Amino acid sequence: MFDPVEKLKEFIRFPSVSADSKFKDGMRGAQEFVSGLLGSLGFQVEVVKTDLHPIILARRGGDPSWPHVIIYGHYDVQPADPLNLWQSPAFEPTVRGNRIYGRGAADNKGPLMAHLAAVGQLLEANPGLPLRITFLIEGEEEMGSPSFLPFLERYQQELRQADFVFLSDTGIPNEQQMVITAGLRGLVTFEIEATGANSDLHSGLHGGVLLNPIQALVDLCASLHTPDGRVNVAGYYDDVLDVEPWEREELKKLGANENDYRKFLGIDAFHTPPGISPFEALRFFPTLEFNGIGGGYQGEGGKTVIPARAFVKISCRLVANQDPQKIKALLYRTIQDRAPKGVKLRIVDGHTAMPYVVVPPDRTNTPKAQPPALARAFRATDAAVKEIWGRAPLYLREGGSVPIIGEIKRVLGLDSVMLGLFLPQDNLHAPNESFNLDVMKKGIETSKRILTAVAGR
Amino acid sequence: MFDPVEKLKEFIRFPSVSADSKFKDGMRGAQEFVSGLLGSLGFQVEVVKTDLHPIILARRGGDPSWPHVIIYGHYDVQPADPLNLWQSPAFEPTVRGNRIYGRGAADNKGPLMAHLAAVGQLLEANPGLPLRITFLIEGEEEMGSPSFLPFLERYQQELRQADFVFLSDTGIPNEQQMVITAGLRGLVTFEIEATGANSDLHSGLHGGVLLNPIQALVDLCASLHTPDGRVNVAGYYDDVLDVEPWEREELKKLGANENDYRKFLGIDAFHTPPGISPFEALRFFPTLEFNGIGGGYQGEGGKTVIPARAFVKISCRLVANQDPQKIKALLYRTIQDRAPKGVKLRIVDGHTAMPYVVVPPDRTNTPKAQPPALARAFRATDAAVKEIWGRAPLYLREGGSVPIIGEIKRVLGLDSVMLGLFLPQDNLHAPNESFNLDVMKKGIETSKRILTAVAGR
Repeated sequence: MFDPVEKLKEFIRFPSVSADSKFKDGMRGAQEFVSGLLGSLGFQVEVVKTDLHPIILARRGGDPSWPHVIIYGHYDVQPADPLNLWQSPAFEPTVRGNRIYGRGAADNKGPLMAHLAAVGQLLEANPGLPLRITFLIEGEEEMGSPSFLPFLERYQQELRQADFVFLSDTGIPNEQQMVITAGLRGLVTFEIEATGANSDLHSGLHGGVLLNPIQALVDLCASLHTPDGRVNVAGYYDDVLDVEPWEREELKKLGANENDYRKFLGIDAFHTPPGISPFEALRFFPTLEFNGIGGGYQGEGGKTVIPARAFVKISCRLVANQDPQKIKALLYRTIQDRAPKGVKLRIVDGHTAMPYVVVPPDRTNTPKAQPPALARAFRATDAAVKEIWGRAPLYLREGGSVPIIGEIKRVLGLDSVMLGLFLPQDNLHAPNESFNLDVMKKGIETSKRILTAVAGR
Repeated sequence: MFDPVEKLKEFIRFPSVSADSKFKDGMRGAQEFVSGLLGSLGFQVEVVKTDLHPIILARRGGDPSWPHVIIYGHYDVQPADPLNLWQSPAFEPTVRGNRIYGRGAADNKGPLMAHLAAVGQLLEANPGLPLRITFLIEGEEEMGSPSFLPFLERYQQELRQADFVFLSDTGIPNEQQMVITAGLRGLVTFEIEATGANSDLHSGLHGGVLLNPIQALVDLCASLHTPDGRVNVAGYYDDVLDVEPWEREELKKLGANENDYRKFLGIDAFHTPPGISPFEALRFFPTLEFNGIGGGYQGEGGKTVIPARAFVKISCRLVANQDPQKIKALLYRTIQDRAPKGVKLRIVDGHTAMPYVVVPPDRTNTPKAQPPALARAFRATDAAVKEIWGRAPLYLREGGSVPIIGEIKRVLGLDSVMLGLFLPQDNLHAPNESFNLDVMKKGIETSKRILTAVAGR
């Protein structure tokens, strides 16, 4: 069997930056590398063309009675700049201490390599392992996975036959505490543009007669939150799933310190609705954030102008069970209802992502039916993590969004077991990205035990 | 004598944007151009150094018994951006129909050129004209004239010997109706910066726990007006001068049509406090306008970021007898009182200008003593305007600010005769600024008659 660390080095050497067409050779190299590796493990590899970067679909079939797991990963990486801040070249893997440095080491080449190695070792030891495995390795994750939904829809009939999805593209707080991501927030993004007079106006010659578009916009934006920090849109919270007691328990066990977090952010005070802690707020509650605002003169000094136009960019993080389409309709209607006289409002659609939640079988008092293989996976994860890492994993919802997880649930009806493997100090999306080789080794072992348990052995 | 239109073209070609240090060559060029022209008319030209852009002080002395007029103008212009909205380049003067297009054509290069031409023609026809003339041409008007007050204080002894100030840096409603500006609004400008976390944050990983600086800023900005359009700062209106009956009469004579004005602005509805017409609002009442706002991601598409920082640029137009320092203190205290927890607010001082009012000798029932030369100038203006433009001028307060007028009154004790020369369609401070060449021609003639009358001829 191959050496996972040596193979990871090979993988990192391909500069597979999906967002920059300069790196198309690196993208092709990484894709061929993964395809070749999967072929050598006995998988039937199909390279599915998309408008941009192909998706690797690699199958290990078997008896239809065997459990069927889809393992997800991505072979593309973030751009590596600013290059001058790297201690060793971004695409020259370098081991220092127990860490391997290089762009993509943690996101997602190292964690993906852990699963490839786990599967390789399992199949070498037991070529007849009664488990169907499908690898889905995409090349556009760092660009927002534009080709992934069309791909899912095209392969829906086949892929929905699987029992669940297994992946490692989320994080853990430290080496002692493993986390299984039990939920992700969804997303609605849009832009509001306010237009007033037909050109910028002199604030002396015309000031005082018309509603300034910036004023219209700040009035509207200010109306979107209550003073106590909730989103001020009727019905916004209607479908928000109640936080279950076991979730609050898990969060307590995490033991994160509010004061440390506040200092990390560099703020004087948190701003959460009454009775909601910051750690709850970012996992269990929706938001409406202003990502950008602009209008009028923004240069040096001043310019006494009444601008003709101003805009704001908004993103809403949603939680289970909010429906992005329904929330979008609520928001747009509210904004139109609050549109002041004297300016024209235009809403520019952005994109949406489904929120996601999955409930592990033994944590909740209100269990729902799950495929037996998924329940086995969760239980095996618990046991393996306890044994290998010394402490039971926590099942926590996370504030971020991984849009493909919600799409997989919506299109294929499948839940995901998200085994977190990267650490805060791994520097994802930043210079000197690295991956902890001890975590990798333990990750391989954990993955092997989970897959073995799912196979029913 | 020089051709005023050709000279104006030369003048416009200097990109004399005072607020942007990129244009320092354009500033120097414009200054040398005006100095040279005044020298060629026989003036003794002194270029007075300041911290930034020099002031041109050009003297034509004479017998101490002669009346003495100061003619004011400025050689700097507003920034020309957004450049893509200009039909012809901003600094390439272009005549289309009876208009000359270019940044500064109307504000203030065209009107200033009218007075330079008038003086040139008068002195050519009568080299012994018994009139002392001092030109004061500054280069920082569009930045709020920061060097002008120290200059006035330095030259106070000499300049206060003059009888009055004559200038054209104000507007007329149309080509038929000349207006002598009987008052100007003052100004307070400043910027508010809101800072939150110590760097931009991921809106998924951290969204919902802290007050977004954009949100803090829009909340604060929204609090600065009442829904009915007044400035929502306690004491803001306390010192506002009552409108005199003759002023309302003049305004009625103006006969401006609200609907036409609304269409000109391209808006659906005006936004003025209850019971106040738009024409009254912009002459007799103070404002608080947002000139620019910025923060976070403003590029194409979206970026799910919580920005670390946002800012807004504000200007307040004040009316007689509001005191800019007092109003500034009220505003800053109100803003600090309303500062939310969790973000840092910083107020960046801009500049201030005194509001101004002057009462023409034959309009008011409560006349005040005026220097004879000033009264002659007002009466000569009446006569010249009637003859050249076919209708008596109106004496109206204006919504704009010419900060130096209030300072001249305060430091030198001099009133100003402000002969309006630019039209609403001249697009001051906006793309496609232009100046009407017929107005320029009549302006030269009017200026000549006024100066002749003041000389006692």
